[in-house]
Amino acid sequence: MRNSSRGDVDPFIVMDVMEAARQAEAAGRSIIHMEVGQPGTPAPQAARDALARSMETDPLGYTVALGLPALRARIARLYGEWYGVDLDPARVVVTPGSSGGFILAFTALFDAGDRIALGRPGYPSYRQILRALDLQPVEIAASAQNRLQLVPEDLAGVDYQGLMVASPANPTGTMLDKPALAALIEAAQARGASFLSDEIYHGIEYERRAVSALEISDDVCVINSFSKYFSMTGWRVGWLVVPEAQIRQVERLAQNLFICPPHASQVAALAAMDAGEELEANLAVYARNRALMLEGLPAAGFDRIAPPDGAFYVYADVSHLTDDSRAFAREILDEAGVAVTPGLDFDPERGAGTLRFSYARAPEDIAEGLDRLARFMKARRGA
Amino acid sequence: MRNSSRGDVDPFIVMDVMEAARQAEAAGRSIIHMEVGQPGTPAPQAARDALARSMETDPLGYTVALGLPALRARIARLYGEWYGVDLDPARVVVTPGSSGGFILAFTALFDAGDRIALGRPGYPSYRQILRALDLQPVEIAASAQNRLQLVPEDLAGVDYQGLMVASPANPTGTMLDKPALAALIEAAQARGASFLSDEIYHGIEYERRAVSALEISDDVCVINSFSKYFSMTGWRVGWLVVPEAQIRQVERLAQNLFICPPHASQVAALAAMDAGEELEANLAVYARNRALMLEGLPAAGFDRIAPPDGAFYVYADVSHLTDDSRAFAREILDEAGVAVTPGLDFDPERGAGTLRFSYARAPEDIAEGLDRLARFMKARRGA
Repeated sequence: MRNSSRGDVDPFIVMDVMEAARQAEAAGRSIIHMEVGQPGTPAPQAARDALARSMETDPLGYTVALGLPALRARIARLYGEWYGVDLDPARVVVTPGSSGGFILAFTALFDAGDRIALGRPGYPSYRQILRALDLQPVEIAASAQNRLQLVPEDLAGVDYQGLMVASPANPTGTMLDKPALAALIEAAQARGASFLSDEIYHGIEYERRAVSALEISDDVCVINSFSKYFSMTGWRVGWLVVPEAQIRQVERLAQNLFICPPHASQVAALAAMDAGEELEANLAVYARNRALMLEGLPAAGFDRIAPPDGAFYVYADVSHLTDDSRAFAREILDEAGVAVTPGLDFDPERGAGTLRFSYARAPEDIAEGLDRLARFMKARRGA
Repeated sequence: MRNSSRGDVDPFIVMDVMEAARQAEAAGRSIIHMEVGQPGTPAPQAARDALARSMETDPLGYTVALGLPALRARIARLYGEWYGVDLDPARVVVTPGSSGGFILAFTALFDAGDRIALGRPGYPSYRQILRALDLQPVEIAASAQNRLQLVPEDLAGVDYQGLMVASPANPTGTMLDKPALAALIEAAQARGASFLSDEIYHGIEYERRAVSALEISDDVCVINSFSKYFSMTGWRVGWLVVPEAQIRQVERLAQNLFICPPHASQVAALAAMDAGEELEANLAVYARNRALMLEGLPAAGFDRIAPPDGAFYVYADVSHLTDDSRAFAREILDEAGVAVTPGLDFDPERGAGTLRFSYARAPEDIAEGLDRLARFMKARRGA
């Protein structure tokens, strides 16, 4: 049996870091995890309670493909609460995580060979999912002066049938404000390309609110998830908002590709949406962590960073310290006991000179990690 | 925004039946559901208890992409228990339902344009998933004398890079015995094609055990799921067994396409595997239902059926009664109050003369449904 060529996707370099960290811990070392892109908190208590109750009375069989009607309605209501947008629940599709949302949106919108423009650095699975579906990722280097977000000028002369952006972005945490997002939507629409907005980190924002593409246009696809703000990574439940004209196509694809999103996760997600107090407490922790990072990283010597508007990442330019971020991350793990992500996963070119630090875990860990980084960098300067 | 052409998949005709049944129930009518392909039972109590406990102590974040190691090991052990096969847990991949298993296997093995041979009638999502992934389903009519399973002679002169079979099959419930399965594996391997075996109904078998493709060859992909025998449809958790040489490719694809299967569902699935007593009680209900069907359907006038070896379906030839199974199913719903599935979903050609009856629900419902069908057919003959 032979492997396909489209399935020959790149490995995640962070997996090597995680495996090395696991081995170090198995050998008895203490490791601070700044490589992991997920909350350390469980699903909100109300979500777990709702599921525990539901398991005793409901067989939790298949739901309809687009998801529980009550959940779709509640998600639509969120757009009123968060953005002042009046959204028809019929346009909301519950998906198996944002991963399922990407697969669904890409297959519904694009044919084999279509070109989808993406900013670099960016979430590595975008390009891998595209390749696995025989689509062509067209990665365009975003510039530091635009805080590593694309601007329409970056797209000049580029041929593409789709444009996808993320705000707040992974790995940078930077956001597009309303005029910047509107300009990109306009650029895509002007050439008849589909516009996709990955809004998975919405809700985790610090000094200003993230802007949804739906505040600007109805003719966009929005991908979101319960993984981050709602602290439900492992539950694999997210959502997609599609234009009216895509609903039927997406429904039929969802029926065939997924049957339905996990029923138990949908029940938990619905309850999570009203767990405001617990979620805001999680957010307060991220805010505290962010403050620690913005003080501690420059103090340690990682001073080439843009303050993140949202998400729980700091992306640092370390090109003055190394030209091999993978080896540097390994050195930090071995000598400081802190696991960090080399930028190569997010930007195969410039990522040799960058690192991503995640601050999704407990503040004590963040403080300890920053101390270790400071000692490591001091020793390194001394060396 | 435009829709893709590959996303333009056929609607499920059974959805129209389900919607009509829903409307009838909303209007106060009693409907017996013989259209639904899922157990009426919940996940085993032990599975739900395990998850309830786990939710209080484990944040249930992402698992590794291939699934919880304990679950992979337990699944490998099942192959010893059920088939006497010694299986390396490294070859077991936990997936988001068998749907996820299909997506993963198809993208790992095939490139755009590759041709995958399938028997007709068959599970309609096979061809839809293949099309959505820009692969070509090559559907070959299986003959009634082979109980609607393919034989190597059916494949003579057919060009294909993959061959997929299901035993027990949906919609027929018929199985391939060991020589028949071996002959098909050999035919595929002789031309260098990948062989895929959908074993989702294994465990639900009546007079003899289903044979796994892994009893015959290691160079096959096996797709299975917790949905049917383990009564966990809505949990979206299944598994894939792949040859050694495919593990890395499948792992990388799984990382990117799904991140991981739902963690909560994996916890529940692991406990479900040791809920033997409850599962065997479910199976006893299916066996009782099957006996009712095999007596009641011919008595009602649906006498052109092959006794199903497994699963919980009876596929009936009704071509002497109608040349429009969709209209006939509608008539049965309206007049008898029994929802059944027109064969067109499973066989766009010959399905105009077939119906699928599901017997997955409670015996009281089956008995009542058979009574209604008998009265309906009697009235129809009298008319």
